[in-house]
Amino acid sequence: MLIVPEREIASLMTREAAFDAVEKVFAAMAAKDAYNFPVIREAIGHEDALYGFKGGFDKAGLTLGLKAGGYWPHNLEKRNEINHQSTVFLFDPDTGKAKAMVGGNLLTALRTAAASSVSIKHLARKDASVLGMIGAGHQATFQLRAALETRRFKKVIGWNYHPDMLPNIEKVATEAGVPFEAVDLPGMTEADVIISITSAFAPSLMADHVSPGTHIACMGTDTKGKQEVESALLAKASVFTDEVAQSVSIGEAQHAVAEGLITESEVAQLGAVINGTNAGRTSDEDITLFDGTGVGLQDLAVAAAVVDLAVAKGVAIEVDF
Amino acid sequence: MLIVPEREIASLMTREAAFDAVEKVFAAMAAKDAYNFPVIREAIGHEDALYGFKGGFDKAGLTLGLKAGGYWPHNLEKRNEINHQSTVFLFDPDTGKAKAMVGGNLLTALRTAAASSVSIKHLARKDASVLGMIGAGHQATFQLRAALETRRFKKVIGWNYHPDMLPNIEKVATEAGVPFEAVDLPGMTEADVIISITSAFAPSLMADHVSPGTHIACMGTDTKGKQEVESALLAKASVFTDEVAQSVSIGEAQHAVAEGLITESEVAQLGAVINGTNAGRTSDEDITLFDGTGVGLQDLAVAAAVVDLAVAKGVAIEVDF
Repeated sequence: MLIVPEREIASLMTREAAFDAVEKVFAAMAAKDAYNFPVIREAIGHEDALYGFKGGFDKAGLTLGLKAGGYWPHNLEKRNEINHQSTVFLFDPDTGKAKAMVGGNLLTALRTAAASSVSIKHLARKDASVLGMIGAGHQATFQLRAALETRRFKKVIGWNYHPDMLPNIEKVATEAGVPFEAVDLPGMTEADVIISITSAFAPSLMADHVSPGTHIACMGTDTKGKQEVESALLAKASVFTDEVAQSVSIGEAQHAVAEGLITESEVAQLGAVINGTNAGRTSDEDITLFDGTGVGLQDLAVAAAVVDLAVAKGVAIEVDF
Repeated sequence: MLIVPEREIASLMTREAAFDAVEKVFAAMAAKDAYNFPVIREAIGHEDALYGFKGGFDKAGLTLGLKAGGYWPHNLEKRNEINHQSTVFLFDPDTGKAKAMVGGNLLTALRTAAASSVSIKHLARKDASVLGMIGAGHQATFQLRAALETRRFKKVIGWNYHPDMLPNIEKVATEAGVPFEAVDLPGMTEADVIISITSAFAPSLMADHVSPGTHIACMGTDTKGKQEVESALLAKASVFTDEVAQSVSIGEAQHAVAEGLITESEVAQLGAVINGTNAGRTSDEDITLFDGTGVGLQDLAVAAAVVDLAVAKGVAIEVDF
């Protein structure tokens, strides 16, 4: 039994390794070599916490297990601990025995960032040069850092509901040597790629804030009722996702589907584009939209990668379990 | 983070501690202080394995977490490992952080044995003296050992589909100083308490094999299609269970309910009897039947108890996670 504590993850895991793991597992999902189990998510009636399990099995990578944890909204104020807490448990698919336990907090941020980057690699125009950011919170810095490593963007433009938070993402752009500019929402028409990463329950980005040829990654919507972009935008776009069932029920596509603007069959798996069974972007005028809902297999994939890195570096704790 | 490996459980956990933990959590469930999450159970398409998660939260005992694992049918033949493999993970309900990892194999056997014993304590006649066993496999020895510690039975009678396995349970009875006798199924009318622990898909124990005043604990049915006793027996009995929703869908009561012999509202929680909100047995002529389906909260309760014992004895492995 191998243990990789949360404190080790930052020095072990690279954005490159997270990107590779997520790209590979999205491909395996589309090839039906990997599947996610139904998600358990419970309001436990204690500390206002949401707790649950996201599990899955990747037959190609032989990765079996789950991420357990959730959202404890008072952790930061009460205990100076982060509010999202999770742990990944990997099992040996040959025997059913527990194989590894891995801190899941930073990994969750990295796998979410990797997902939008994978979508940019496979769906954005080759000449994309302006990156737009909707959202400027903690997770936005992860998405931006990963995106800036995926393509050579010439400029980052950003909007946030609370403009005083924009320096969070400006700092990341500046560190990467890319100029940053705050814009209003109509200013997003300048962007070739837009990442939206908020926890909003009403759309910010409207259809006419988006120019033809843009790729949009909607990364914030993972619950019934949340919404980041106008549903009319999905009707104009080619829509891709990690997991179709989640996209149309708890993801960004829930609204467009409920309103009858698109059907479930119009939502494609990003993994199919990676595998080459879906053409993806077919012209420089297409608007492509990736609805990143977040699946357990992403967590398992990055956790398995970090266990390998920890073993190679000799920092995995071995317990005779 | 505390770790209690499988190999430590046998020397730590007592049948008494398992009994107390299960009795307490059944009571908490009936008082609505504790609840089980939906169960995830997946045929993963590898090694013919069934894998899944049983989670829950006990607000009274502040126990949060899950049992993960399942059934790997080729473990024994291929690797000399047991086929049922499980691990319990406990979380701190105040913070969402992982708190303990505990080997779940022996604990599962002990908590299942404890459940039938708790039902005997609360539902069997005070003067019960003959214990009948249906089933003589590995788990039957656990059920019998626990039952013999709950009441002073004067005799054990046993039946098994394969009579050559009866020495398994005869040995347990003999060790406890109680005489054992093999019987045919009609011979079960002599029993005051019957424990049925098989994995049959057709009933063995028929209604006319059971005398008035008997208490029956059906412990083997945990899947759609399994059945240990004739459904007419449930119509004649006062029916109790750990979790009503499981009892009527995957437990022994599934058949009587499907056939319209009883309704879901006629299945009561054993915890309500423990709490005194349900009268339980009301006469020496009543037939009482406990449908033990097995819930995640039982696993969490015994795991939490064993962690306390491991800490007290200084054998819990502490990992800075």
